Amino acid sequence: MSSSVRDIAEKSKRASRLLASCADEQRTAAMRAAADLIEQNTTALLQANAQDLDNANRMVADGEITAATFERLRLTEKKITEMVRSTLAVAGLPDPIGRVLQRTELDTNLVLEKVTCPLGVLAIIFEARPDAVTQISTLGLKSANSVMLKPGREVERTAHALVEIIRRALRQSGLPEDSVTLVTGRESVLRLLAMPDLVDMVIPRGSKQLVEFVQANTRIPVLGHAEGICHIYIDASADSDMALAIIDDAKTDYPAACNAAETVLVHRQIADAFLPKLARRLRSRQVVLRGCETTRAILADQAVEAVADGEWRAEYLDLVLAVRVVDSIDHAIEHIHTYGSAHTETIVAEDSIAAERFLAGVDAAGVFHNASTRFADGYRYGFGAEVGISTSKLHARGPVGLEGLTTYKYILRGAGQLARNYQGPNANSFTHKSLPID
Amino acid sequence: MSSSVRDIAEKSKRASRLLASCADEQRTAAMRAAADLIEQNTTALLQANAQDLDNANRMVADGEITAATFERLRLTEKKITEMVRSTLAVAGLPDPIGRVLQRTELDTNLVLEKVTCPLGVLAIIFEARPDAVTQISTLGLKSANSVMLKPGREVERTAHALVEIIRRALRQSGLPEDSVTLVTGRESVLRLLAMPDLVDMVIPRGSKQLVEFVQANTRIPVLGHAEGICHIYIDASADSDMALAIIDDAKTDYPAACNAAETVLVHRQIADAFLPKLARRLRSRQVVLRGCETTRAILADQAVEAVADGEWRAEYLDLVLAVRVVDSIDHAIEHIHTYGSAHTETIVAEDSIAAERFLAGVDAAGVFHNASTRFADGYRYGFGAEVGISTSKLHARGPVGLEGLTTYKYILRGAGQLARNYQGPNANSFTHKSLPID
Repeated sequence: MSSSVRDIAEKSKRASRLLASCADEQRTAAMRAAADLIEQNTTALLQANAQDLDNANRMVADGEITAATFERLRLTEKKITEMVRSTLAVAGLPDPIGRVLQRTELDTNLVLEKVTCPLGVLAIIFEARPDAVTQISTLGLKSANSVMLKPGREVERTAHALVEIIRRALRQSGLPEDSVTLVTGRESVLRLLAMPDLVDMVIPRGSKQLVEFVQANTRIPVLGHAEGICHIYIDASADSDMALAIIDDAKTDYPAACNAAETVLVHRQIADAFLPKLARRLRSRQVVLRGCETTRAILADQAVEAVADGEWRAEYLDLVLAVRVVDSIDHAIEHIHTYGSAHTETIVAEDSIAAERFLAGVDAAGVFHNASTRFADGYRYGFGAEVGISTSKLHARGPVGLEGLTTYKYILRGAGQLARNYQGPNANSFTHKSLPID
Repeated sequence: MSSSVRDIAEKSKRASRLLASCADEQRTAAMRAAADLIEQNTTALLQANAQDLDNANRMVADGEITAATFERLRLTEKKITEMVRSTLAVAGLPDPIGRVLQRTELDTNLVLEKVTCPLGVLAIIFEARPDAVTQISTLGLKSANSVMLKPGREVERTAHALVEIIRRALRQSGLPEDSVTLVTGRESVLRLLAMPDLVDMVIPRGSKQLVEFVQANTRIPVLGHAEGICHIYIDASADSDMALAIIDDAKTDYPAACNAAETVLVHRQIADAFLPKLARRLRSRQVVLRGCETTRAILADQAVEAVADGEWRAEYLDLVLAVRVVDSIDHAIEHIHTYGSAHTETIVAEDSIAAERFLAGVDAAGVFHNASTRFADGYRYGFGAEVGISTSKLHARGPVGLEGLTTYKYILRGAGQLARNYQGPNANSFTHKSLPID
């Protein structure tokens, strides 16, 4: 078995070398063929999924998976239609590969280009959701990467059926079928994570526990979905109606999202006037408040619970909001740096000097002025597709589009130039002239 | 002691928050002040260095360090002048921070910007070279990052004297002195490497062993100097004079450099004619050849040694060159992917179809056509300053300039927009209009 995961990874690597030289038209055609085949095989896919659901039923009974996981696992005709639609949407995006990022003339007939290229092999370790298969496979193909899929046991048969369909589409389109491979068995996760020579990036999709397990057990770069402890700072200069509306949206629009707000910081100068309005608004939205001492004193009539030790770091993912009164914008920024996850932070302020200070001073993937934290999202940012949200500072930060699945290489085209002619006395000199990239 | 490394890291983090909001003029002024102070304190620096040399003398006698290390450790007036010159040169580079990489209108009065910002805290672990102190400190300051320096024991006094001077310049310029800090003691290396919450990037400068130790012992991203196993492929269509000149330059200009060539791959069709010329040229340059079986047969009169098992992966860093005859360009590419380090690979060919195939098909940080591998270098690429060369695919690849010490954040400026108004029936729609970035 050990050799078999490695065999698959080696096949995947070989396929990635071929993919890297394939034209976008060919990769796009394979994605369109996959969309067609998925649609035509709706019945077979639902049958495979029914087997998974059968097993999962027992797993729910045994307490191995939750009812919520069971629901995420269920494939429906509607979900298949959505898979097809999103596959075609990704196919239609601009080619992320071969884009010239920079072009410099080093000397006559010596031109350097910085050009985007694929990473190579992506390993995706996911749980429950069948649509992870098509989503990652299509993002991978569009960016000319090979994809190795490791599904959770509960979704194995569905994943297998989908992967077989995609591999058929690849063959039909003249692309290497090993561009998309399936890896199964619990022990194969650690084997995959131990192959930095073959796997270029790992993308865990599932629980926070899964993401943390992957991060702790590999030297391969991980593109991990983020924990989002997002703050909204209400400046002394804030328009209070706008502040209430933004807090409401950021907390209640989709509380389980990583870009939902968890903590509101209110400037002391307006706390007496603002906090009662905030409490009223949130009560009407079924949001439970937790507060610092000052907040609880101002809202003394409402029996607001205290924020417990360590709770400023909590990601509630629920209709619960922590509120703290701060002495100044600097105090707010310090709180954010101490307890935040560098995901997305908002200031509500009419004073543009305060706003710019916040935008410059806060170290996070997204810093917003007078807008809901919920805008932190690949689709809303206009990326076309979202690979995930990264709170890592390197490579990709914030919502990550197809670009996050690419790297670049430097291509130098010369006419026999030697380095030694550019040093010492009588050296040729470099022109280092920036050239247009189109 | 344990708390003290952490204390220093916390001070460094706080300083980095302040630096991030400082204007380029202020950071540049501090660098100019440091250059002045270094020049004025030449005598004191040489005295501090003399103490290090005294100790190092004993270490050479005890076999703890080599004579070569001793030489790298020695500070001279000329080296100090060079430190001053390069500090001023980095100060004069364009500001890498606050550059708008992308600007998108999401909707009326809702504008998203992708803006470069510093990484935060850089930890540099280095050996012997005193100029690492000024080089990394100035690159760090120019990119608004705090820098923590961990020198080797043999260079501690010199590093301390230099750091004190730079901290004085920071104070004089109104910047936090903890932007540059010194950490000492062998045990502090592992402590530093265990602080991914405070340190944003580690840059090891020294032996391959040091780089590998750092990579194996931290979850912090490492910007490591690369192993360079660079190849030159001589296509059947190559101009043989050009091929000889490029091989000569790539092997002999500076054999100890990571961008020197280690292996030449020769197309079978021209091997009989080309290899004797190559052997003659390299003999005249004191280069020792090692060969595959075919090479040895063609050069039967020269007693060429065989390439041993595993030797195709050797980085000779010396006047030794491995030669292999290959059947095709694909065979050459396969050899490069199997044995190379993805640093820099060159094809010599007159056939432009072969050349483009090589440039597209080879997965490496640099892929060159008709140019010496020795051009893979930040200065030659026109980056102004070189932080290092990366063979990692993520974040920074190939020669890395100041840009490699930055990340970006998304700044969204709104007028109270809520995410919920952009979904469901009667949703506002996004404009996603690309705006000019200047």
